[in-house]
Amino acid sequence: MIGRFISLEGGEGTGKSTQAKALARSLESKGITVHLTREPGGTPGAEIIRDLLLTGHEDKWNMRTEALLFAAARAEHCQSLVVPALERGEWIVSDRFIDSSRAYQSVSGLLNDADIMALHKVGSGGLMPDRTFILDLPEEVAARRAEARDRGDSDRIGGRDSDYHHSVMAKFREYAKDEPDRVKLIDAAQSPEDVTTDIMHILNDLIG
Amino acid sequence: MIGRFISLEGGEGTGKSTQAKALARSLESKGITVHLTREPGGTPGAEIIRDLLLTGHEDKWNMRTEALLFAAARAEHCQSLVVPALERGEWIVSDRFIDSSRAYQSVSGLLNDADIMALHKVGSGGLMPDRTFILDLPEEVAARRAEARDRGDSDRIGGRDSDYHHSVMAKFREYAKDEPDRVKLIDAAQSPEDVTTDIMHILNDLIG
Repeated sequence: MIGRFISLEGGEGTGKSTQAKALARSLESKGITVHLTREPGGTPGAEIIRDLLLTGHEDKWNMRTEALLFAAARAEHCQSLVVPALERGEWIVSDRFIDSSRAYQSVSGLLNDADIMALHKVGSGGLMPDRTFILDLPEEVAARRAEARDRGDSDRIGGRDSDYHHSVMAKFREYAKDEPDRVKLIDAAQSPEDVTTDIMHILNDLIG
Repeated sequence: MIGRFISLEGGEGTGKSTQAKALARSLESKGITVHLTREPGGTPGAEIIRDLLLTGHEDKWNMRTEALLFAAARAEHCQSLVVPALERGEWIVSDRFIDSSRAYQSVSGLLNDADIMALHKVGSGGLMPDRTFILDLPEEVAARRAEARDRGDSDRIGGRDSDYHHSVMAKFREYAKDEPDRVKLIDAAQSPEDVTTDIMHILNDLIG
């Protein structure tokens, strides 16, 4: 595959969506064809599964069902949008991808990383991004930001408690340590413009 | 787990639903507590996923997404209904279970048996029925029966072509050969009463 696949990860309130948009614009200004997308969702079928996942009560789905639904949405997203675009030499900028499943679904202790990756292998051939940016923010800052924008419609997963989100961030930092070439920690306490500049700097070698 | 788990399998028009009901009644008449259920579905959450799977266009979901959605519905069904019932010492009679996923999803050639079982392991701990009855009927008879009752509402999967259904039945027969203690072929060309008698006979040792 000749295109490039970039994912943005991090907790709620770290600015992922803002940065995904800014990054897509910056790449487009260099003449690159970019698809700005998100998970769960990104295609009509996957967005239907997203609705199942993010609406309703906290205990609507058990952890195992939830992991399978995320993998199903991802399989649809990859086969309908991500893989065909990469094969055409285009770029993908995705607000969340597999690392979110790994982090959010393994903190329960019920599923481990191998389980999540097994689902990803069957569903999407184990496709990994070329580069992943973790927007890293002290948790109290992220919580304040998430709260400030929360209009009472926090979703099923964003609404979980602070211990949960703390453990998720610890997982993300672990992935950056384990795969330093792919996964980069970005200081998200900077201004949005500086965050975008940092990300573009780290993408320089891929833009060529 | 002290209860017993029975599944009925076979193509469309082989009489699975009729037999599942008759079997549940026969077991109840012996003083056994029985849960009559079906897949995909069987619990409110799993029935929502069933609707996603069985309605809409043939190409609504790619094979991989479809396999993950079936596994998600099964994980919900197992954790909310099947496993708790078995732990209470009750019986489950399910109209379809994992062998349907194995047969229907592997005939495309895109996924193999190991893939389907990997999803089942993560989703439902690889839970297998104690005994599985394949209702075996010459395909032309099954097709005539399915057609006779088809009121134009054949679902996404039932509506696939006869080569597909032929390959599915061949898979079912293969499972009976591979696991003769668990998987039993039943001659479904007999009268419904005789089919039920055959099944009850093979369950004698489990009823005790």
